[in-house]
Amino acid sequence: MIFGSDNHAGASDKVLSAITAAYQGAAPAYGDDDYTRGGVESIAQAFGTEVSAFFVSSGTAANMLALSAMVDPWDGVVCHHQAHILLDESTGPSLFTGGAAMLPVPDRTVRMTPDQLDSMITRLPSDAPHNIRATTLSITQANECGQVYSVDEVRALSDMAKSHGLSVHMDGARFANAVAALGVHPSELTWKAGVDVFCLGASKNGAVAAEAIIFFDQSLAKDFSYRLKRTGHLTSKARLYGAQFSAWLADDHWLELARHANAQADALRTAVDDLEGVRSAWPCQSNESFMVFNKELFAALLEAGVSMYDWYPNALPEGTALADNEVLARMVTSFATTDEHIERFVETARGIGSRL
Amino acid sequence: MIFGSDNHAGASDKVLSAITAAYQGAAPAYGDDDYTRGGVESIAQAFGTEVSAFFVSSGTAANMLALSAMVDPWDGVVCHHQAHILLDESTGPSLFTGGAAMLPVPDRTVRMTPDQLDSMITRLPSDAPHNIRATTLSITQANECGQVYSVDEVRALSDMAKSHGLSVHMDGARFANAVAALGVHPSELTWKAGVDVFCLGASKNGAVAAEAIIFFDQSLAKDFSYRLKRTGHLTSKARLYGAQFSAWLADDHWLELARHANAQADALRTAVDDLEGVRSAWPCQSNESFMVFNKELFAALLEAGVSMYDWYPNALPEGTALADNEVLARMVTSFATTDEHIERFVETARGIGSRL
Amino acid sequence: MIFGSDNHAGASDKVLSAITAAYQGAAPAYGDDDYTRGGVESIAQAFGTEVSAFFVSSGTAANMLALSAMVDPWDGVVCHHQAHILLDESTGPSLFTGGAAMLPVPDRTVRMTPDQLDSMITRLPSDAPHNIRATTLSITQANECGQVYSVDEVRALSDMAKSHGLSVHMDGARFANAVAALGVHPSELTWKAGVDVFCLGASKNGAVAAEAIIFFDQSLAKDFSYRLKRTGHLTSKARLYGAQFSAWLADDHWLELARHANAQADALRTAVDDLEGVRSAWPCQSNESFMVFNKELFAALLEAGVSMYDWYPNALPEGTALADNEVLARMVTSFATTDEHIERFVETARGIGSRL
Amino acid sequence: MIFGSDNHAGASDKVLSAITAAYQGAAPAYGDDDYTRGGVESIAQAFGTEVSAFFVSSGTAANMLALSAMVDPWDGVVCHHQAHILLDESTGPSLFTGGAAMLPVPDRTVRMTPDQLDSMITRLPSDAPHNIRATTLSITQANECGQVYSVDEVRALSDMAKSHGLSVHMDGARFANAVAALGVHPSELTWKAGVDVFCLGASKNGAVAAEAIIFFDQSLAKDFSYRLKRTGHLTSKARLYGAQFSAWLADDHWLELARHANAQADALRTAVDDLEGVRSAWPCQSNESFMVFNKELFAALLEAGVSMYDWYPNALPEGTALADNEVLARMVTSFATTDEHIERFVETARGIGSRL
Repeated sequence: MIFGSDNHAGASDKVLSAITAAYQGAAPAYGDDDYTRGGVESIAQAFGTEVSAFFVSSGTAANMLALSAMVDPWDGVVCHHQAHILLDESTGPSLFTGGAAMLPVPDRTVRMTPDQLDSMITRLPSDAPHNIRATTLSITQANECGQVYSVDEVRALSDMAKSHGLSVHMDGARFANAVAALGVHPSELTWKAGVDVFCLGASKNGAVAAEAIIFFDQSLAKDFSYRLKRTGHLTSKARLYGAQFSAWLADDHWLELARHANAQADALRTAVDDLEGVRSAWPCQSNESFMVFNKELFAALLEAGVSMYDWYPNALPEGTALADNEVLARMVTSFATTDEHIERFVETARGIGSRL
Repeated sequence: MIFGSDNHAGASDKVLSAITAAYQGAAPAYGDDDYTRGGVESIAQAFGTEVSAFFVSSGTAANMLALSAMVDPWDGVVCHHQAHILLDESTGPSLFTGGAAMLPVPDRTVRMTPDQLDSMITRLPSDAPHNIRATTLSITQANECGQVYSVDEVRALSDMAKSHGLSVHMDGARFANAVAALGVHPSELTWKAGVDVFCLGASKNGAVAAEAIIFFDQSLAKDFSYRLKRTGHLTSKARLYGAQFSAWLADDHWLELARHANAQADALRTAVDDLEGVRSAWPCQSNESFMVFNKELFAALLEAGVSMYDWYPNALPEGTALADNEVLARMVTSFATTDEHIERFVETARGIGSRL
Repeated sequence: MIFGSDNHAGASDKVLSAITAAYQGAAPAYGDDDYTRGGVESIAQAFGTEVSAFFVSSGTAANMLALSAMVDPWDGVVCHHQAHILLDESTGPSLFTGGAAMLPVPDRTVRMTPDQLDSMITRLPSDAPHNIRATTLSITQANECGQVYSVDEVRALSDMAKSHGLSVHMDGARFANAVAALGVHPSELTWKAGVDVFCLGASKNGAVAAEAIIFFDQSLAKDFSYRLKRTGHLTSKARLYGAQFSAWLADDHWLELARHANAQADALRTAVDDLEGVRSAWPCQSNESFMVFNKELFAALLEAGVSMYDWYPNALPEGTALADNEVLARMVTSFATTDEHIERFVETARGIGSRL
Repeated sequence: MIFGSDNHAGASDKVLSAITAAYQGAAPAYGDDDYTRGGVESIAQAFGTEVSAFFVSSGTAANMLALSAMVDPWDGVVCHHQAHILLDESTGPSLFTGGAAMLPVPDRTVRMTPDQLDSMITRLPSDAPHNIRATTLSITQANECGQVYSVDEVRALSDMAKSHGLSVHMDGARFANAVAALGVHPSELTWKAGVDVFCLGASKNGAVAAEAIIFFDQSLAKDFSYRLKRTGHLTSKARLYGAQFSAWLADDHWLELARHANAQADALRTAVDDLEGVRSAWPCQSNESFMVFNKELFAALLEAGVSMYDWYPNALPEGTALADNEVLARMVTSFATTDEHIERFVETARGIGSRL
């Protein structure tokens, strides 16, 4: 009954075999090898365009390095109030960018709208050089509230950003889940919709540790290897990442894994509808679900071995609130979530409910 | 008709004479001189306690250096949504602290309350090491909305901060105006009320360029001279600052200057009450006043030579808003504001009003 | 004929199997898992003492993070003139430490002596806060010139460092090779000899990507997870590293791998003694060898498929020099270097020599 | 008998009067005032070319900010082994540039030569992205060893730098002394000789605290006000600096002050030639002189009230050394050094010498 995070899962057999194969013989170091080149080529093919791409071991590193290539140290990055770069990367984005600040859109909704963005940027203090200068928009897809932005929504956000002179970053730690949910070509959700720099995560969806920083605007990749090196992210035996990405992208393996995770999330959400003491906090479209639990039920479920986390109360949209005996929780499914996990969760919850 | 800022004013004769006197002969460099020691001693006397104190040329430098001695690079500084350290120091606080973030209390009121602080800290994500760790509260006195916190209010904020494990910084760029407004001893508003590190500004109130970083908690001053040096703020012929502070604090000169500035602000606010097309945005107690102007009137006043600034719309308290034909503006008086400035402003506004 | 670097080799079967096994099921993220705990425990056992230990994917990251826990931003790290932290980590050590500088001992010998260290520190400008304050010594073992420091030498360097108030860091990217060369217990070369913080590398010796930061002085590990997080080095599915370390350390696998690499280096050096047009640049004791080649021979060898690098001329000890037709080169053996590699290299060199 | 530093002197009457005059009335803040514009215009006139120029309160700040506009965080700045940016600015240059390293030319002579520069850059490790990339040369004029580079020497250094792709920074904390010593037009020593960014110091030569960062290559000044702001160096009542510079440059006042300082240094060096127990360490051409004293004489002189500093032994050129009973010392004259200072020093030294 593992719903704590998609990064609690193991790795897919295909990815593991690719790692073992890649380390059977010698290869040049620091990314000058065929595995790395193959990984980049796989990305170019999957997205249907030429790219500059680089690999790192964590999504936090990917985001921070990507942003460091996009902003000046006196700039700000506009993002959602629950963005990973704002809340879950400590003060790292500031370290890697030389000081840039994360600027959350103040409206507390589970997805950002172009109007919110417009209003926020328009009202931002902009007296140079005193105020922080907003120069980049970061969109998470699927986002931290389990939301998926449609092609039109991504494009509308990008267009609004660019009308204000901002470039566009996308945090795609769960991008596979978004593509699987929408059934569109990856290019439609990224460079064709105005995304300049894109972080594509494989770790949460079947890889061991593999994240790509993809420059659709290749001019921004200038000197990027220096950025990798001086942050300790230029791995010596770098083929680890390219090998994973090639195996992960081949034959739509990544989308197959994501479709499974999404389907299990749908099943979970459907099951919850019938349970006492728990309700959906808001509708979700990806492999993340947000639930409001009765506190006693929640505690009993944890005790019974369900892995899941209570969540930041600030994530609740404006105008919603928890009752005193309620707790907000996040439940995440993954490529490894089985039907049995969900069935056991439902049975456990029913059993506890009948005793409460 | 200069109401743009108190840093548009010149300097007091006493301060200027002190500078000229200090540079008549030789003195050791880098603060190892009698003028610097005298300045520190003046501060200790004015605040009735032993201190470690250092001088710099800007309030921004003072705040950033003070905070750098208080936080780790992965920490956050809780502050008001209009705080200078949040909005008006670019990304400098992050640079000087090695990365720390400014965390505004989300409630949009013109003064921070202990309840707001409590609620904010309680709801802050605090999953180490992912989330930013709030470890310091910064209070501005008088604050950026023209508000003065009473002795009890400062103490209540400090107590709340300390109950959550936060230390307390005070940005006193306009501290003299607060003391003058309240008529209390400076110690009551600072170390006796729980302030650990205090930035005292003289520049806005009669000095040329003189700001002090005052450690009531002297343990935090360890290695502070390294911080000054490596940010370029260890001035070689440093007596400039100590000489200004000694002259400024002597015989309550600083409070005399501040009382004048406050009195002129009171006069301005009273006068505005009788004018058409302009109203007080909220009640103020210091030398800063916030007005809502009819846009045409505002534009005509600027044209007529009134110096004042339109202000960030985000500064408006929750629930208030501007009409389409209104603009928020800040008007600041100083030690140098004359009765004639105010009279001419009133006459000019009346003249324009009669023509609109 | 791969002598370019030990990080050109693949990975050992035991390590690869351990990775595959570790990702078969679910486990908590961010290092709160049994694989990570097992890796730390393996290190504690191998070194015979309690430790705080953390894992990252590159030796550069390990060094930079270790140093960040040891120095203040205004400090300096004393090191050898060929130290990796000085030459081969770009400006990363400065980024991670908040600004600290690397201070090379000026004597140009292939190994640092306590006398050199003493003389260097004694002569270092030390007028606070103007000059950089040396507070840490970094020793590389085996070092970047292929040298191994004996137990007595490490202790003598540590003692000298501590007599000047410096703490001691050891870069052990090739530590296994040093232990294998000396045949002593790992503890003798580290904490028993005065090392406070130790970076142990597995990547160059059979692992995929696994480096440990080991705090013998556990007080320095305070808040270390924040350092990992904000540099993107807190990997989500972190078991990767612990699994590798456990397999690598088990049953002296790491030493077995290193002994092989060292033996092959010895064989290479012996073979070179008999070759025309190449000579040992200086005697080495680890798996790195430095050779002076006739330029034509060197170029012909590269053409013939020998992988090796010409090396920084600054690495040459004082008083030695290259002739115009000579080039300095580094040749590195690894756990994967076969007898055949060496035989083919010798034959190739002989064949070329006979034609020159 | 004040020979400790030229920043121990007071300020010239003309500069002090200019400060007092500048603060008689109101003026816009943050450099948008006629005094600041006048200061920039004075510089443009003195150097006979258009410039972008900015003012700060310390030479350390000027250097660090100038370099921050010239290099990337992974770059290195080549400099003399006694450069202020290397030794006397703590780790600040690294902080302000985001990490760049200072790379001293290893030859230990009192002035840098183009050949040294060529040899150093040629031998520098340059394997991207591992090694630090040298992109800027910094020349100090007059330099930290009391040396003045001729017009031809500056040009030859610049030419060599540019032939390797480096831009050129000049630290002119004592530039006035160099111009006075050479009797050439300031333009000949700066932009006409290839200097791109120039720091001109007034503080050591009659000003209170005034240093200019002058961009001859104005494209490098882009966004410079953000750099000033986020380091706390955008002074609010900024007219302080422009007023000083205008007064200092007017009617060659700066050169008059510098000529006096130089003449007093010449007199001091001539006098020392006749004294027992002290000798010139090397010939100097500016207002700094380096002497080797008998230790007893040195101690007795300090006791007798002579202010001067013993100096870093590393400053001694290669091949020179101190005897056991000798100490290296620096003696600096200034615009305020009187004949009587020198006469009393000579008499005091003679008196002590006769008793030793």
